Amino acid sequence: MMSSVQGYRAVVTGANGFIGANLVRALLQTEVDVTCTVRPGADLWRIADIRKDVRIVTHDLGHGISDAMKREVGKADIVYHLAAAGVNQAFSDSASIVRANVAGTLELLEAAVDWGVERFIYCGSCFEYGSGNSLSENDIPNPMNQYAASKSAAWIFSRAFGAQHGLQVVSLRPFTAYGPFEGSFRLVPQTISKALQGSPIALTLGEQERDFVYIDDLVEAFLMVANNKDLDGETLNICTGIATSVRSMVNTILEITGSDAQPLFGSVPYRESELWRLSGNPEKAARLLEWTSSHSVDDGIRATLSWLARSTDEVKRNYYGN
Amino acid sequence: MMSSVQGYRAVVTGANGFIGANLVRALLQTEVDVTCTVRPGADLWRIADIRKDVRIVTHDLGHGISDAMKREVGKADIVYHLAAAGVNQAFSDSASIVRANVAGTLELLEAAVDWGVERFIYCGSCFEYGSGNSLSENDIPNPMNQYAASKSAAWIFSRAFGAQHGLQVVSLRPFTAYGPFEGSFRLVPQTISKALQGSPIALTLGEQERDFVYIDDLVEAFLMVANNKDLDGETLNICTGIATSVRSMVNTILEITGSDAQPLFGSVPYRESELWRLSGNPEKAARLLEWTSSHSVDDGIRATLSWLARSTDEVKRNYYGN
Repeated sequence: MMSSVQGYRAVVTGANGFIGANLVRALLQTEVDVTCTVRPGADLWRIADIRKDVRIVTHDLGHGISDAMKREVGKADIVYHLAAAGVNQAFSDSASIVRANVAGTLELLEAAVDWGVERFIYCGSCFEYGSGNSLSENDIPNPMNQYAASKSAAWIFSRAFGAQHGLQVVSLRPFTAYGPFEGSFRLVPQTISKALQGSPIALTLGEQERDFVYIDDLVEAFLMVANNKDLDGETLNICTGIATSVRSMVNTILEITGSDAQPLFGSVPYRESELWRLSGNPEKAARLLEWTSSHSVDDGIRATLSWLARSTDEVKRNYYGN
Repeated sequence: MMSSVQGYRAVVTGANGFIGANLVRALLQTEVDVTCTVRPGADLWRIADIRKDVRIVTHDLGHGISDAMKREVGKADIVYHLAAAGVNQAFSDSASIVRANVAGTLELLEAAVDWGVERFIYCGSCFEYGSGNSLSENDIPNPMNQYAASKSAAWIFSRAFGAQHGLQVVSLRPFTAYGPFEGSFRLVPQTISKALQGSPIALTLGEQERDFVYIDDLVEAFLMVANNKDLDGETLNICTGIATSVRSMVNTILEITGSDAQPLFGSVPYRESELWRLSGNPEKAARLLEWTSSHSVDDGIRATLSWLARSTDEVKRNYYGN
């Protein structure tokens, strides 16, 4: 199936992000022509080594499509819309979130029509659900913060826009992704970093449950959607269906690294707005996309460590947040 | 129950609209203090006779809360948010719709917190569903145009905002309202006008089904929500549960008026994006709010005609669109 996207032209927004950078690499491997959009002033460490293989344009989401961007893209077959504001600041200014994530998605949808795009692939978020285990695409969205609300809202607009303009739209809704190029402030990179250093790890009690998806599995789903014509308007969870506690993830990392770093469970208080459970039902993606995750948490952590071992010092520094 | 809202201070946005004007009248009858917000330059025909009984401030939704508005409102107990852009122009500029309806709702939610508001009552729309019969609040929203998408999106933001800021939010989702002060371009006023004149009525085949709710019933639900503390975050259909075809509504009007106006069914083509069925399940409102509609279509049309007979020439002219 991959071969039939060979020669496609793709636009990837937020291409310098964790998911974006992994997706762009995979697209290049399938010989897709990629235009990366990144916000002005973005740190491009994740795509530094592939800059020569892609077109990079800056795009200030929600502030219009620049002439330079229109020129650079020209024509495209697919848009992967991964860019969003506010993911790491649940309480940031809601007007900017609406502008970047909702109005910004609409401006991209309009541009996609001009570019002759066939399929607009929207990157949703498990946070659209609020919380729960075995969450299914038939559950009513119940986001708990403005970022999550903006992800739901933009997807609702995308479906309406797609229906009105004959543009195919699909939403993939990733759960908790981890792996190469993840942001250093997050659980897995922080734990791996401390584990490899052998330093004590400050943690909550770690009872929160998440559905951890290895990034290569997730990226595979994004590739499989590229030329699937039967998913117009659909929303698909990208998850494993397995709820893993933070404590268990930390213990797995300590075991695999053979680290004697001390996990200080309970030394950090839970957040006031802690989401206790957040795992999905993967059945719909299995049925409609024939996609299932293939990495267990063990496999994924081993693969991440093996990638780290092969990485340059600069990539390591960024991953560890040094 | 009504008496316990006596002395409440309410802000009603879009107070000059069809639902707004009827709601403001009902609030005044229950001795609620009302601040009406209206867009700059709005035609105030629907509230002309009660202008002296209310405070009126202009508010350009999505462009911030003016100092005058902050001053006029000061403190409030409830906000009824009915104002929205684009209801009659499904294809109007989506950036303005996002700004007015989504960003505008967020600016009002923030103002509501400043005003010490207890309950934010959001006026949703049956168009959030897309289409179907017996639609229930558990159905995933599937709006078909940007206006409807904006109504869903703003409600999603409202729930997240309410949960974050401890503001109670409720959405009432009206189906097809009709009655006094309805807009002249709509089915019931146009048909009544032609029926009373005895002129031929250009119509589609009229097979579309709608859930027609008499405005007084709808307004009663809005009043009942004012001091109900058990509905935080809830969405309630305001509907009858009965699907009535346009053809049947027209025939009812012709019968009740005893008109010999000729209904030219089929002389107007269906819209390309016609919604064939749009009726709701009223069970949740009955259970949680103890509200059910009490007017049959016959009752509602009779009540509308009786209101018209008592109305001034100016109100009649506006209702007929002359």
